Amino acid sequence: MSDEKFKISQKILHNSPVRKNRYRDYWCGNISKKNIGNKIKLSGWVQKRRDLGNIIFIDLRDRTGMVQVVFDSDISKESHRLSKKLRSEYVITVEGKIRQRPDESVNYELRTGEVEVISEKLEILNESKTPPFLIKDDIEIDEKLRFKYRYLDFRRPIILKTFIFRDQIIKAVREFLMGQGFVEVETPILAKSTPEGARDYLVPSRVHKGSFYALPQSPQLFKQILMISGFERYFQIAKVFRDEDVRANRQPEHTQIDIEMSFVDVEDIFKLNEEMLKYLFEKCLGIELKTPFERKKYSKVIDMYGTDKPDLRFGLHIVDVTEELYSTDFQIFRKVIKKKGKVIGINVRGAAKKFTRKKLDELSEVAKNLGAMGIFWIIIKELGEIQSPIVKYLKDVEKNTILNKFEAKAGDLLILMADSSDKASTILGQIRLYLADKLSLIPKNTYKILWVYDFPLFEWEEEKNRYQPMHHPFTSPNEETIKFLKTNPLKVRSKHYDLVLNGSEIAGGSIRINNSNLQKEVFRILGHEQKEIEDNFGFLLKAFEYGAPPHGGIAYGFDRLVTELLQKKYIRDVIAFPKTQKATCLLTGAPDEVTKEQLEELNIKIIKNKN
Amino acid sequence: MSDEKFKISQKILHNSPVRKNRYRDYWCGNISKKNIGNKIKLSGWVQKRRDLGNIIFIDLRDRTGMVQVVFDSDISKESHRLSKKLRSEYVITVEGKIRQRPDESVNYELRTGEVEVISEKLEILNESKTPPFLIKDDIEIDEKLRFKYRYLDFRRPIILKTFIFRDQIIKAVREFLMGQGFVEVETPILAKSTPEGARDYLVPSRVHKGSFYALPQSPQLFKQILMISGFERYFQIAKVFRDEDVRANRQPEHTQIDIEMSFVDVEDIFKLNEEMLKYLFEKCLGIELKTPFERKKYSKVIDMYGTDKPDLRFGLHIVDVTEELYSTDFQIFRKVIKKKGKVIGINVRGAAKKFTRKKLDELSEVAKNLGAMGIFWIIIKELGEIQSPIVKYLKDVEKNTILNKFEAKAGDLLILMADSSDKASTILGQIRLYLADKLSLIPKNTYKILWVYDFPLFEWEEEKNRYQPMHHPFTSPNEETIKFLKTNPLKVRSKHYDLVLNGSEIAGGSIRINNSNLQKEVFRILGHEQKEIEDNFGFLLKAFEYGAPPHGGIAYGFDRLVTELLQKKYIRDVIAFPKTQKATCLLTGAPDEVTKEQLEELNIKIIKNKN
Repeated sequence: MSDEKFKISQKILHNSPVRKNRYRDYWCGNISKKNIGNKIKLSGWVQKRRDLGNIIFIDLRDRTGMVQVVFDSDISKESHRLSKKLRSEYVITVEGKIRQRPDESVNYELRTGEVEVISEKLEILNESKTPPFLIKDDIEIDEKLRFKYRYLDFRRPIILKTFIFRDQIIKAVREFLMGQGFVEVETPILAKSTPEGARDYLVPSRVHKGSFYALPQSPQLFKQILMISGFERYFQIAKVFRDEDVRANRQPEHTQIDIEMSFVDVEDIFKLNEEMLKYLFEKCLGIELKTPFERKKYSKVIDMYGTDKPDLRFGLHIVDVTEELYSTDFQIFRKVIKKKGKVIGINVRGAAKKFTRKKLDELSEVAKNLGAMGIFWIIIKELGEIQSPIVKYLKDVEKNTILNKFEAKAGDLLILMADSSDKASTILGQIRLYLADKLSLIPKNTYKILWVYDFPLFEWEEEKNRYQPMHHPFTSPNEETIKFLKTNPLKVRSKHYDLVLNGSEIAGGSIRINNSNLQKEVFRILGHEQKEIEDNFGFLLKAFEYGAPPHGGIAYGFDRLVTELLQKKYIRDVIAFPKTQKATCLLTGAPDEVTKEQLEELNIKIIKNKN
Repeated sequence: MSDEKFKISQKILHNSPVRKNRYRDYWCGNISKKNIGNKIKLSGWVQKRRDLGNIIFIDLRDRTGMVQVVFDSDISKESHRLSKKLRSEYVITVEGKIRQRPDESVNYELRTGEVEVISEKLEILNESKTPPFLIKDDIEIDEKLRFKYRYLDFRRPIILKTFIFRDQIIKAVREFLMGQGFVEVETPILAKSTPEGARDYLVPSRVHKGSFYALPQSPQLFKQILMISGFERYFQIAKVFRDEDVRANRQPEHTQIDIEMSFVDVEDIFKLNEEMLKYLFEKCLGIELKTPFERKKYSKVIDMYGTDKPDLRFGLHIVDVTEELYSTDFQIFRKVIKKKGKVIGINVRGAAKKFTRKKLDELSEVAKNLGAMGIFWIIIKELGEIQSPIVKYLKDVEKNTILNKFEAKAGDLLILMADSSDKASTILGQIRLYLADKLSLIPKNTYKILWVYDFPLFEWEEEKNRYQPMHHPFTSPNEETIKFLKTNPLKVRSKHYDLVLNGSEIAGGSIRINNSNLQKEVFRILGHEQKEIEDNFGFLLKAFEYGAPPHGGIAYGFDRLVTELLQKKYIRDVIAFPKTQKATCLLTGAPDEVTKEQLEELNIKIIKNKN
C-alpha cells in the first residue's frame, strides 16, 4: 500500500488538538527536537520493552505514532521499579522530560527517533495479556484471527488511517453535494417488503402480529417520494441490506451514497457525478481527473470487453472475426457460426515471445475452466509468417483478413475462441483479465473511469418464462425505443447508466419513470397482477398522480468505491466490523439464538428440521 | 415558528447553483428587478391559477420560492392556449421574459413580487389531481392526512427548511468533531441480541436457521471495542432501534450522535460537549452559549425539581418543609411524615391574584389526576396575613418558619403537598410544569442547558427482587463510592451524566468500566450467571484483558435535539418518514404480510392466535 494515499490521514492525526488533561498534554508521535527540555505527559500503549538492568526502554504508542521512553533508576527509582512490570500493550501514563538521543542511538525510521522521554513518573492504567499477534503494519495474519481480535488488529497504524481515509471520502462527497444544494434526508430502515424483495431481511412486528418490516435493499421508493415532494436535490449516506449468499466481495449490509435530482436528464446526472468525482479525487488523492469521462454504450462494451464493467487500464480489446470466417472450412468455427455463435479474439500485442507452449497450455486450461470448449492461438512471426495449430485449416484470404482486422504485427499473439454469442464474450472477457494480470499490464495508481449507458430495459428470464427488469422496474425507457414497449419489449433500451472504475461497478442509476400509466405498463409487462401492483406500489402510483417531476439519480456502493480508491482487494478491508461469507460476526458471534420469550412476544416459532 | 431559525436554510436554497439544463436556467425564488428584460427558463409546480380570459396568471413554485407567470394570448397564442389546462400542482417548464409589474399589482409579500415572467413557451411535464389540502405553510392539516400524502405535505416550504436545518446541525457536529480528530466509524446494524435486549428488533438469519440478528439499541459494545482498538476518538451519526410501545414522543428507529473518547474523565467529556454545543448554537442559531454549563447532582435536581430533567427556563423550584413540620398537629402532614414521607411545596411568586378559587380547584384536580392525595394552598396577603384551608391547623411558629423557608412575600401563592418521598417529588415536578405553562412563565427562544451527574449506579427492582443498572451495566462507579460495591450497592454512585436542554434529556453518557474484574463484579451484582456473562459479553471481557484504556462518551438523541432547537412539539416533526404510535408507516403501509416462501426460507412460522 502506497503511503501516498494516507498522507492526509497522517496529517489529521498529527494535527488533532491534544485536549490536555490528567492523562496527557502531548501526542507521542508529535514530539521532536523542538521539544527538547520540555516536561510532558503522555498516555498510550507499550509497543515493546528492552530491559538493560538499571535502564529500561520502551516504545510508547498512541494513535499519532511512537516515542521512546527511558526508565533510569538514577533519575526515578520508583518509575524504574514499576517499569519492570511493563509488557507489550500495557496502557500507561508517563511524565518526564524530553532529551536528545545520543547520535549512535538515533532511529531514523521513527518520526520521533532523534529524541526520547526520561520518565519521572509512571502510572500503569491497565495490563495486557500477550497479544496473539504483533501490533505492526507489515505482517501476515490469518484473517479469522484478525477479525476475532479486531481490537488488536485495529491497533495497527494502517487500519486507523484506512478509516480516516474512508471518512475523508464521505466528507468530500458531503461538501460537494451540500455545496450544490443537496439535502441529506434519512429514510427508514424499518421499511416495507416488496415482491422484488426475495432477498429482503425481515423484521417481525411485535405490535402487528404476523406482519413484518423489511430492511431496505435501497431507499429507492423513498427517494422517488422525496422528488415528488419537491426536494429537487436529495442525497443520503445510507445503510442498505441484501440477504444473498455472500460472495467473496459482498456484505449483508453495506453503505450507499444515494443521490437523486429533479428536472434532469441523463446528461445532467453525468455532469454532476463527474464534478463530484473530480472534487473527490483532487481532495483525497491529489489526482486531477479529466472530464467528461469516457462513455460507451452497453452493447459496445460487451462486444469490446465481454463485460459491462470493463477495466480500461489496459488494452486487449476483443475483435469479432465471425464475418471474416463466414465461409471457412475449419469445422469448429463453421459449426459455431452456423448456430449463430461467433468467433472472437484478442491481439496480445508483442506477447508472442512471452508465451511459451507451456503457458499457452495453461491459458487453454483456464479457458476450459471458465467453460470454453477451447482456445486457438496464432503467433505472428517475423515477415508475416504465422504459427498456429489451426493455420492449416485457414484459407490464405481468411488469414489475411483476420490479421488485418486484428492489426497484427510481427511478435503479436492472437487468442481466438468460438462459442455462442454471450458465452464467447463472457469467457473471453475473463481471459482478457487473466492475460492482463499474467503480463502485468495493469499500472498501479491509475484510475480509469467509464460511463456505460444504453442498457436494455428488460431481459428474458428463461426459467420463469417472463420478462424481468435488467435493473429495476422504475427505470425509464429512452425516448427512441419506447415505441417497442407493446410490440417487442426486448428492443426497448433504458435510461440506466453504470459508472465503472478500474473494472469495478462503483455506481449505477437511472432516470426514473414519473408517470403512473407508463409505470403500470411496465409492471404489466413484468407480469404483475393488478392487485399485486396496487398492494405493493399503490402509494407510489398514487403519488405520480399529483405532479411528479422528471427525476433520476445514482447510487454508489460506497464500500466498493473506497476499496477501489485504496486499490484493496476486498470490501471487508474497508469495513470496521465486516461479516464472514456465512454472514457471521466473528467478534460478537451474531447471529445468535434468542430466548423463547422473545419469540413468543413476536408471535413466531422456529420450524424444527424434519430430520 | 420564528423564521429566524430558517434564515440559513433559506440562504442555502437561494444560493444553490441552478445547474442550467433543458428544464431551467434560473430559480423561481431568485428572480428580481435586476433580471428585468432577461429571457429565462423555469421549471416547477403551479401554485395557483387565475384566468382573466385573454390573460392567465399563475404562481410558479420551485424549492426556492415563487414567481408570477403571465400567459398573454397577444404574446404567445400557443402558450396561452396550453395554459388553460393548468391546475394546481401541475409540473411545467416555462420560457419567457422578465418584466416589471405595474405599480398597482406589485406583491410586497412575495420576494419576487415586483416582477413577473411573460411566457413565450410552455411545456406541461406532468399533470396533477386536485390535492387533498392546500400547499402552504400556515394551515392546519389533519396529521394522518399529512403523513399519508407526505409528498404533498413536503411541498410546504417550511418542511424543506426544517430538513435543511436538521442537516446544518449534523454538519456543524461533524465539522466540530472532525476538527478535534474524531473518526466516524460505521458499526453494524445486523448485530447481536443481548439479555438487556428485551426490546430488541430481531432479524431471522436465513443462513443460520433458528438464529437471529438484533438491530442495535445503541452501538455501545462496538464503540467500546473501538476504544480498546486505540481509535481514541470515535463518533457516528448512528441509527438505533427500540421496540417499545411507542409513546407520544418516541419512534421505533431514531438517530443518535454517538461520541466516545479514550484517556478521559467526566470533566473532559463535559468540556468537549460544551465546546461542541457552543459551536453548533453559534453556527445554526446565531446564539452564543455561556460555558461551562450549569451542573447539578442528581439528588439535588430531584429535590429541587422533582425530575432528573428539569426545565430551567423558569423558577418554581421545590422547597422541602418536612423538617419544619416535624411536630405538626395537622393530621395529614403528621401521618405522611411518620411514614418517612415528606411535605414539599412551591412558591408561585406573585400568583396569589392570578389564581382564583376556580383555578385552584382545577390545579387540585390536576394533582389528583397525577396521583396526589391532594394539594394545599396558602395565599400570602398584604401585611403577612395568610389565607388557606389549612391555616387553622398550623401553629404560628410553623407558619412563620414555612413562610421563611419559602421566602414568601405578599402576593405569593404557596402550593404544598405531602406524600411518600418519591411520589411527592414526581408529582410536584409535574405540577411545576403545569404552573409554568398556565402562567406563561416559559420564555420563547431561550435555551437553558444543564449537566446532571452523580447518579446512583444501581436501582432496586422490587418486582424481580434484584438490582438493575440505572443506565447500563458498562457504566463506571465513581472512585469515592466504589467501596460500597460489596456492602451496599445502592450507595454506589456512577460516572453517568445527562445533558438536559429546556427540560428535555438530549444526551446521556458515562465513563465506562475498562477492567474485566470490575465488569464481572457488576454483572454478578446484577444477578447474571457466569455462563450468561460469558455467552453474551465474553468478547468484551476478553477485550478488556488486552490493554483497555480508560474511556467514556455520550450519545445525543439527535431527533430530540433538533426538535428542541426548533422548539417543536414532537420528534416526528423533524423525521422525514416517521411511524405512528402503532409503529406503522402511513405512506407505505409497513409493516406488512410477507409470502409463505419468504418465511419458509427463514425457517420460521407465524403462531396462529388461539382465539
